[in-house]
Amino acid sequence: MTETTGLHVDGAGSWLVRARKEVSYEVRVRDNLFRPDRSDLVEIGSDSPGGRRRVVVIDGNVDLLHGERIRAYFDHHAVDCAMVVVKADETVKDLATAARVAEELDRFGIARRREPVIVIGGGVLMDVVGLIASLYRRGTPFVRVPTTLIGLVDAGLGAKTGVNFNGHKNRLGSYAPAELTLLDRSFLSTVDRRHISNGLAEILKLALIKDRALFELLAEHGQVLLREKFQGRTPIGDTAAVAVLHAATQGMLEELQPNLWESELERCLDYGHTFSPTIEMRALPALLHGEAVCVDMALTTVLAYRRGLLSEDERDRVLTVMAALELPTWHPLVAPDVLLQALADTVRHRDGQQRLPLPVGIGDVTFVNDVSAQELEAAAVLQRELSETRFRRIAAGKCV
Amino acid sequence: MTETTGLHVDGAGSWLVRARKEVSYEVRVRDNLFRPDRSDLVEIGSDSPGGRRRVVVIDGNVDLLHGERIRAYFDHHAVDCAMVVVKADETVKDLATAARVAEELDRFGIARRREPVIVIGGGVLMDVVGLIASLYRRGTPFVRVPTTLIGLVDAGLGAKTGVNFNGHKNRLGSYAPAELTLLDRSFLSTVDRRHISNGLAEILKLALIKDRALFELLAEHGQVLLREKFQGRTPIGDTAAVAVLHAATQGMLEELQPNLWESELERCLDYGHTFSPTIEMRALPALLHGEAVCVDMALTTVLAYRRGLLSEDERDRVLTVMAALELPTWHPLVAPDVLLQALADTVRHRDGQQRLPLPVGIGDVTFVNDVSAQELEAAAVLQRELSETRFRRIAAGKCV
Repeated sequence: MTETTGLHVDGAGSWLVRARKEVSYEVRVRDNLFRPDRSDLVEIGSDSPGGRRRVVVIDGNVDLLHGERIRAYFDHHAVDCAMVVVKADETVKDLATAARVAEELDRFGIARRREPVIVIGGGVLMDVVGLIASLYRRGTPFVRVPTTLIGLVDAGLGAKTGVNFNGHKNRLGSYAPAELTLLDRSFLSTVDRRHISNGLAEILKLALIKDRALFELLAEHGQVLLREKFQGRTPIGDTAAVAVLHAATQGMLEELQPNLWESELERCLDYGHTFSPTIEMRALPALLHGEAVCVDMALTTVLAYRRGLLSEDERDRVLTVMAALELPTWHPLVAPDVLLQALADTVRHRDGQQRLPLPVGIGDVTFVNDVSAQELEAAAVLQRELSETRFRRIAAGKCV
Repeated sequence: MTETTGLHVDGAGSWLVRARKEVSYEVRVRDNLFRPDRSDLVEIGSDSPGGRRRVVVIDGNVDLLHGERIRAYFDHHAVDCAMVVVKADETVKDLATAARVAEELDRFGIARRREPVIVIGGGVLMDVVGLIASLYRRGTPFVRVPTTLIGLVDAGLGAKTGVNFNGHKNRLGSYAPAELTLLDRSFLSTVDRRHISNGLAEILKLALIKDRALFELLAEHGQVLLREKFQGRTPIGDTAAVAVLHAATQGMLEELQPNLWESELERCLDYGHTFSPTIEMRALPALLHGEAVCVDMALTTVLAYRRGLLSEDERDRVLTVMAALELPTWHPLVAPDVLLQALADTVRHRDGQQRLPLPVGIGDVTFVNDVSAQELEAAAVLQRELSETRFRRIAAGKCV
């Protein structure tokens, strides 16, 4: 077959349809997005005959903290707004919540393509609203305003949407990037410290598999980032916050762009996401997403160490930084039966092979397909021992 | 911006992600698909370590009529099959039915990309299974075997999937073509006469807006097609069946391929689909999809006649053929309030404009944006009068 798109017909009663979809989206840093003079959220989309109309889906907590100034912003810009307030956490990241949002789009009578849905919240809400926007009339545009660190550096940047289903994490979803994501770190000032850690886990993931310099930034400035919540209250804290957010965004987008639809299933961004989906779902609501990812990374760091892929010093540095970022390095669900069930499901997700990303030193990655039950169990035992004796989560500790 | 894909960064903190997705799918005519020597359904996809495994989702009625030989076929080819039997009609074309199918995919433990889901049924079932396949792990491949005429010439050919939601037809859906559709007209032998008419409505639509020769085939052979159910029991019936199916498939794919994701909202294939979604949903389960489409086409044929887009003779020929195909040319829901509500929702669906396809003569189309309430009402009055006096649905009539 040629590479051209088109309709190819053969005489024997067969047609081949070839088509190409171009997708583009923007990720834009914009501090203080809801200051009245900012126009980013007003400029996107078009007016309808009755004027500018928007559905804004907002997380319940964000609404309590910021709802007043957000409403004032849209009032100021004369946008006819339906504010839809949604409780959003992993326990309600499901089809029912997605359906509720769709009912609100019906109620508002949104035009199919000119009135982008605006979602303001964390990763869970962006995933749910992204999914329903991608399904509503087979796709209506949306704009993301992440309000958590994990939203800023992970969920807000890619094309993936999803809901949990039948006890499985993100079992139903789509690839549908927001046409615009606006990164405003000022929202992090009202995020609690544990959720800052939660987001740092995904930044650490990126550092471990592709960016040693980012790892060094986290090792050096992890505590100030936690303390200042990326608000830059000191010059050094500001420099670190800007550098870490920039490196995290750049690194994520570099990995996402060439593989937006995951045609390649060996994805280094899947590091920390082999065992964690099952652990996270079974632990609900005890573990946050980034915490479950960190438990997975601690396990696979130890596993990689046992294979000689990183040294004992490197292993201990990684675990030390995890603890200093106030992330867990072990969890009781790291047990042989859970790990094997998790691996079996991940193998199905990766179409029949493990395709397990493992760190090589700090900042590089390899993929393996031959992890055995015995190896997993031995790694889990060592992980637990290290975690309990030396790398227990530090409540307000200090990076060594 | 350049046309290349990639990650474009500017210094001011903005990233532009550009990517391109290539899609291709095949539509293949294959009579007697489940004869033991046929291998089409066995060859697609790959084996898993345990052998060839497939989930087959089959319509309940098709299972009663053909389930035994379909099971024997997969047994013969040593395919480890989970047969999922689903009642499928417009009243259960919803998220709950889709979710039930997803649970079965979980239960079977389907691999993400090597074990395509096979759906055997009509348009409703293909739409529902296509939707859930497109969502399951963000997309698992599927194969369509349409068993109704509307499935063969319409739902089985394009990229659209969907479910009804909140009282609206196909309000939630995706663009996700089956990687392969297998067209086996032998299934039509067990389809009742009314459902043959139902499919003929979509063929007539295509004829009216782009293929006068196809219209003449329907005018000449409509009754033999209904009588022989496309089985070719006579030489003339066989020639007509093959010619009509080929022209319908070719015409549909010609229209679909350049606009697979509906970036262009002026679609001639939307002819008959401006008022019918609302009429069909309100009439449920009284009107079949094609019947509602025909009521819409009868209305818009009269409307086009009143605008001078087609002559009185042409108008009457169209209505005559509709009646001869045993399709309704009017319905009590063709009332001003229903039509206006339907139009308002369609305008939202077409992003703020009517973009109403109207026939120009027989075999051509134009788009208008200025249909008024008065014009609609006048057309509806004339449609009713013509329908009641001259073009009442013919039970087993004869084309004039």
